[in-house]
Amino acid sequence: MKGAFQIPVRVYYQDTDAGGVVFHAQYFAFMERARTELLIAAGFDLARIADTKRLLFLVHGLNARYHQPARLNDLLSVSAEVVKMGRVSIVFRHRVERAGELLVEADVTLALVDRDRMRPARMPQELEQALK
Amino acid sequence: MKGAFQIPVRVYYQDTDAGGVVFHAQYFAFMERARTELLIAAGFDLARIADTKRLLFLVHGLNARYHQPARLNDLLSVSAEVVKMGRVSIVFRHRVERAGELLVEADVTLALVDRDRMRPARMPQELEQALK
Amino acid sequence: MKGAFQIPVRVYYQDTDAGGVVFHAQYFAFMERARTELLIAAGFDLARIADTKRLLFLVHGLNARYHQPARLNDLLSVSAEVVKMGRVSIVFRHRVERAGELLVEADVTLALVDRDRMRPARMPQELEQALK
Amino acid sequence: MKGAFQIPVRVYYQDTDAGGVVFHAQYFAFMERARTELLIAAGFDLARIADTKRLLFLVHGLNARYHQPARLNDLLSVSAEVVKMGRVSIVFRHRVERAGELLVEADVTLALVDRDRMRPARMPQELEQALK
Repeated sequence: MKGAFQIPVRVYYQDTDAGGVVFHAQYFAFMERARTELLIAAGFDLARIADTKRLLFLVHGLNARYHQPARLNDLLSVSAEVVKMGRVSIVFRHRVERAGELLVEADVTLALVDRDRMRPARMPQELEQALK
Repeated sequence: MKGAFQIPVRVYYQDTDAGGVVFHAQYFAFMERARTELLIAAGFDLARIADTKRLLFLVHGLNARYHQPARLNDLLSVSAEVVKMGRVSIVFRHRVERAGELLVEADVTLALVDRDRMRPARMPQELEQALK
Repeated sequence: MKGAFQIPVRVYYQDTDAGGVVFHAQYFAFMERARTELLIAAGFDLARIADTKRLLFLVHGLNARYHQPARLNDLLSVSAEVVKMGRVSIVFRHRVERAGELLVEADVTLALVDRDRMRPARMPQELEQALK
Repeated sequence: MKGAFQIPVRVYYQDTDAGGVVFHAQYFAFMERARTELLIAAGFDLARIADTKRLLFLVHGLNARYHQPARLNDLLSVSAEVVKMGRVSIVFRHRVERAGELLVEADVTLALVDRDRMRPARMPQELEQALK
């Protein structure tokens, strides 16, 4: 994960299920946290963009592989990296690791949409440049 | 629960935690489902009220007691009943049961707010009458 | 979705996010409900298999495409269908529809694991036959 | 909140609902994070206690008041404080604040239970002393 933006994530009871492991869909919540913090670090506040520019990022596709389960109390590292930028979409690659071991990885494609008409919208230039 | 409105709720992995039981906050999600179905049965669509009248119900207070835990695959009955109606707030009483045994009970106070100004709003008359 | 097993799912506030749509990871919870009900209808109780045979299904891979967002109060139909059965894994195909319109689709690969050693386990014959 | 243990919590889309605010039950997840981090800081690892001593904390009661809603991208401070210690239960007080303003407060009563028999269990002495 050299170079990739990372955040620490602790696993609490709220993240686990009766199988004793993190519920499979919860990793996508961890990844959303990493993605949002990356945007904040790059100067983008999604709440403000939603309000002032009436733009939303919607998930358009998602591809995940699970290698090892995370467990209660684990301290994970979750990365976010932009691997592709189009005019109306971005692909983020995420890796969830525990002490250097890869647990889960996913590519998440986000499409920018006009919030009021729910139609594809073009990426604002400042966002495009900041993420490059 | 004679007379109270009830819905069935199955417990899935998504509702449980590593303790092998339903995560404590998840019962409030079950209760929201019962409350919403009660409103729908009374002719009220919260999504439409939010859009057309710009009104939201926000939870203002919550008081819960947990007697027995629910477990994976349990088939629960979750009730919703209006126990108090004021001008700007409603109190719902909820009971979560399994085969007649009371597991969790809660009183949830909702306040009606104007969505744009986030200020208390008066209950629309038709809602007040329908819930009486 | 002719022939596929389906369950109805109502969208409540708990399923949505501030974008006004269902949170992207929540569709996987809807799909888990459909998958579990399919197994129950086929005579399999995951909680009992976990207890008596010490077997768990863990998600091993997931591939989703999002076409249209679901919204508050929508009444969805969520399907589950077994599209591939191996010795240690099953692939389920899920479709989320609203009034016949496809909103989200996903293939979810589950691997059977021995709960105590967290190693791949062979599918019990009765499960294999019931799902065929 | 002078003296109380606190953690920072950022509000992401996953925490919000279509009302544009944090979903009411999600504050209890924030509080569980603060409570767990307090226990970890005091030297207690809930996952290890569950495994080796077969003890679980289950929520037994919960009392919450909501003053102001939190919103997308807010940076909150969530506190945890032990306000009462009995032989088989603990009461935690939690406050959720944004820039010094109190948004939500709750008292959460946890009961210690023997995981295998689901019966009340006595607090281990080292836990009792560490939390005093």
